[in-house]
Amino acid sequence: MNLSFDHITSASNPSIKLLRSLERKKGRNETGLFLAEGARLIEQALEQDWQVETLIVSNSGAERDYVQALAKRASEQGARLIQVPDRLAGSIARKDNPQAVIAAIKQRDLALDDISPEASGLWIGLYECRDPGNLGTILRTADCAGAAGVILIENCCDPYSVEAVRASMGSLFDVTLARTEFAAFNDWRKNGRLNMVAASVNGDTSHVGVDFIQPSLILMGNEQAGLPPEIEAECDTLCLIPMRGGADSLNLAQATAIMLYEGWRQRGFV
Amino acid sequence: MNLSFDHITSASNPSIKLLRSLERKKGRNETGLFLAEGARLIEQALEQDWQVETLIVSNSGAERDYVQALAKRASEQGARLIQVPDRLAGSIARKDNPQAVIAAIKQRDLALDDISPEASGLWIGLYECRDPGNLGTILRTADCAGAAGVILIENCCDPYSVEAVRASMGSLFDVTLARTEFAAFNDWRKNGRLNMVAASVNGDTSHVGVDFIQPSLILMGNEQAGLPPEIEAECDTLCLIPMRGGADSLNLAQATAIMLYEGWRQRGFV
Repeated sequence: MNLSFDHITSASNPSIKLLRSLERKKGRNETGLFLAEGARLIEQALEQDWQVETLIVSNSGAERDYVQALAKRASEQGARLIQVPDRLAGSIARKDNPQAVIAAIKQRDLALDDISPEASGLWIGLYECRDPGNLGTILRTADCAGAAGVILIENCCDPYSVEAVRASMGSLFDVTLARTEFAAFNDWRKNGRLNMVAASVNGDTSHVGVDFIQPSLILMGNEQAGLPPEIEAECDTLCLIPMRGGADSLNLAQATAIMLYEGWRQRGFV
Repeated sequence: MNLSFDHITSASNPSIKLLRSLERKKGRNETGLFLAEGARLIEQALEQDWQVETLIVSNSGAERDYVQALAKRASEQGARLIQVPDRLAGSIARKDNPQAVIAAIKQRDLALDDISPEASGLWIGLYECRDPGNLGTILRTADCAGAAGVILIENCCDPYSVEAVRASMGSLFDVTLARTEFAAFNDWRKNGRLNMVAASVNGDTSHVGVDFIQPSLILMGNEQAGLPPEIEAECDTLCLIPMRGGADSLNLAQATAIMLYEGWRQRGFV
């Protein structure tokens, strides 16, 4: 294989500066790119035809077979290849022992207009989800349960943050994902006749009493505040996940998993 | 109120050094103490009669009413009160904007002999759980679902790490928790006639096909490796959580929540 790597050794090289900027939301917004670390994650991105703009290979990883194979594939799909000293790879990934490969990938948000609410799986709406670890974990679980997709509503955290990408374990590349405001979202789900079910402390029925066999959307609120009253008023059903004991709430990702798997259970896991 | 605070301003003060050592497992093992941050968490500890050895109050928080009330209560239960500059509080909590109060609390592990397997709730066993965020989240979910308790088996991460305590949101103080080796654990659960159900890729029945109404223990394996064959061989039932789509596994805390809520659902949430 004759792969053409740009060799960069200076932290002040503009390409390195750009890659380093992707740790912050500002840098991601300005470039439309984000970082994914590790061969497995990057392979998943390539398999799902995400556009890898740059593949960064560390000196100590460059000769490994799997790195060479990944570089070949990324290059064929149009990626620029860069080889850097390990310390520079570490400075991009912001850790001491970086993975042998890091990719800068083009963000690919869908607009609501691009997705049909008539998919067969359950939908998940996240209203102002703020924790990127929760968001990534929910994407992974949505992927496992074959959810129709995840809609991020209003001010959610960035699904392209390093922490969210990491927690998603590659599911970010698989799951249908859109970002929108509530009004547009509510019109969209009404057009699709999706029954909107929210988990809420104001629910008067248990989540297992909800009919999830009809076309459904599970709406989950913010980690601290839940859903505001005006959003709850728009829901078709408010349900309560049973709790007892000392804790007064479930972690958001845990609650979402419990709702989603109950819905999928009712459908016989098909 | 006349509360007696020790005022410390030097980072080289032995008490500060000791408190700073609690961020690491070595420091926690040597002292038998651990850190909890924030009034809400510390209040939960005091309510459940955990022994707060030291309560650290930052200068900027010291005059607040809720801090004074907490200090009074902690002092009455035998805590030493220390007031420090904000930068020292930050150096103990390892962050720039520390909470107004931080507590050093005495660890309280139970031995298996101290707990009866005949409790009414479902038991959770975690075999070599390595991620403290997962462990803390599972403690919180176990608390919400009124699980009988959580048993940490073999080399699990430390439930007293800052990250686990944080993720547990205070449930660490509520949930029955023991640490043990597998052989002792297996004897204990056999004595209690607990049906041991493991989630495993080798399961041949879905988790919803398992009878959780009988006295049961849900056994979950390591994040990467799952359960070793010799441990699976000891289980009464291996079950599979249904999955489809691109992801090949659920996050450990997500899988545990799905198992636990299915078990509790079968029991009618009582």
